[in-house]
Amino acid sequence: MSLMDEMNKRKGRIEKEISEVFDHNRSHPMWENMAYYPEAGGKRLRPFLTMITTGAFGEEESRAIPYAVAIELVHNFTLVHDDIMDKDERRRGKKTLYKKIGDARAINAGDGLFALAFKKLAETDVDEKDLRVLLDELSTSIVRVAEGQEEDLSFQGTYDITEDEFIDMIEKKTGYLFRAATRGGAMIGGADEASIKAVGEYARKMGIAFQIQDDYLDLIGDEELIGKDVGSDIGEGKKTLMVIKSLSELPHENKERLIEILEKESNTTEEVREAVDLFEKAGAVEYSKDLAEKYAREAKEHLEILSDGEYKKMLEELIEFMISRNR
Amino acid sequence: MSLMDEMNKRKGRIEKEISEVFDHNRSHPMWENMAYYPEAGGKRLRPFLTMITTGAFGEEESRAIPYAVAIELVHNFTLVHDDIMDKDERRRGKKTLYKKIGDARAINAGDGLFALAFKKLAETDVDEKDLRVLLDELSTSIVRVAEGQEEDLSFQGTYDITEDEFIDMIEKKTGYLFRAATRGGAMIGGADEASIKAVGEYARKMGIAFQIQDDYLDLIGDEELIGKDVGSDIGEGKKTLMVIKSLSELPHENKERLIEILEKESNTTEEVREAVDLFEKAGAVEYSKDLAEKYAREAKEHLEILSDGEYKKMLEELIEFMISRNR
Repeated sequence: MSLMDEMNKRKGRIEKEISEVFDHNRSHPMWENMAYYPEAGGKRLRPFLTMITTGAFGEEESRAIPYAVAIELVHNFTLVHDDIMDKDERRRGKKTLYKKIGDARAINAGDGLFALAFKKLAETDVDEKDLRVLLDELSTSIVRVAEGQEEDLSFQGTYDITEDEFIDMIEKKTGYLFRAATRGGAMIGGADEASIKAVGEYARKMGIAFQIQDDYLDLIGDEELIGKDVGSDIGEGKKTLMVIKSLSELPHENKERLIEILEKESNTTEEVREAVDLFEKAGAVEYSKDLAEKYAREAKEHLEILSDGEYKKMLEELIEFMISRNR
Repeated sequence: MSLMDEMNKRKGRIEKEISEVFDHNRSHPMWENMAYYPEAGGKRLRPFLTMITTGAFGEEESRAIPYAVAIELVHNFTLVHDDIMDKDERRRGKKTLYKKIGDARAINAGDGLFALAFKKLAETDVDEKDLRVLLDELSTSIVRVAEGQEEDLSFQGTYDITEDEFIDMIEKKTGYLFRAATRGGAMIGGADEASIKAVGEYARKMGIAFQIQDDYLDLIGDEELIGKDVGSDIGEGKKTLMVIKSLSELPHENKERLIEILEKESNTTEEVREAVDLFEKAGAVEYSKDLAEKYAREAKEHLEILSDGEYKKMLEELIEFMISRNR
């Protein structure tokens, strides 16, 4: 079975679980709002990671489902709130939730998803001792995600951002929830400490690669597939690694011009093209791609601790998928 | 020792714990934002409830502290987000958090507090089996709080609200977290099912009484003590029980006038006075006070299951305090 087939198989399972959660409660208007993102699709990467990590240690994947659903709900809650904070207007090809129902209800629906995730966590079929560890793992990772979001917000007012600061931010915003997905999966699978650590590092680094790739896809992706306008990050003046790298590499005049384009309320197609040319001139597109690949390579090395087999193969292929995907 | 002394004793303990949590992490700007409400004081009613419920079943109160802190952090997270949703400008005599740092950072700081509460929960010194129950209890209560907030938001666009709908809303927004505070405290204290249920009902009904009283205090309270302007609910057009009752009791002309005052962007002192007169004419102020007392009485009846002693006395006195307080 191809990786895509393996992913789709678990995706179906997770989506069935998610639907059931919301179907029980849909009569209350908040639940309709809560269901908007989780039911709008998505790659379900995080629950996939949890399930196959559990499987990799010889345990039934189905035992991982409540935790996997919890992770996916946490991910969706962060999307709901992030869209408000970042003023993003489209998500997965649809209006963002706050654009549809207003800030107040969207904040609240996000809170509902957050709480629901922990309610789901309580259903996890693990030794009671492990439940405490999972609770600490998941809550700590969300604290890190929020720290990363704060750092991201602080980037909005400045161009004085180092590459290290940027990587630290995406590590927190993306890496830590990926990490919690695999560490939790490994714990449910009964893995030993060293293995839990290894798959956690694998996922953390893959998360960083994933996020760098995400910004890169905004430039080269297919609008239909990525569900938003190509170059929208430039229009929004987002401080991606490509921006940070370009600003540190370009001569003064180019740098000023790039900032000018990023600062504009909206950009023409020509301006977006011009910004991309400046990224290219600075070698920042290539640099981003290389750095994503470096993190992906390092991620893969952490898998050496696992015994060979279909699960290890999936985890390895997932890295390839991450950095070669077009959506 | 008077109830106030007993409350202050635990308040000091809880505030010390809260400070320690934030002192460890204050170097990150998000943590400074997260600490703003928890360190701004407050009555610490919910952690007090948890601690004395644990004590009431013969267990050391100190065992309840992590859970009590978790409940207080949850309460503070709801305040941070509610202030954004309700556009409130002052809280505990200071600017609300979002007024100070903007919506985005305040949403995020609220999320950080939410996650931190569950991290604190993981520290609770209980049997691992009980931890699962506490996790379910706390997360479910937050789902209810969010449902209540959604209902409250839906009231903003209408005057067609029944008393039952209003009570259902405040039960969820306030009653359920009070309920989780005592149920958790009782579980930590090793109480049996019937006792857990009884103290839960006690707290749920007290929460309803507390909220009705809160709206009443907005009219008759001391500005210095309540930390906001007297009559501010009228200025904001808040749909309190007094408003709902007045609209159902007053003749058409008075009703139209009351709505006119509530709809205005801001009110003069005369208009606030006029609204209060209309509440009085409808018997709504007296009605609110009576209903709060009815819930308080019912709450007290649930305490019959407890054995006599200092803890039962505190829980009883707490009800008196709730409905006779001026802040």
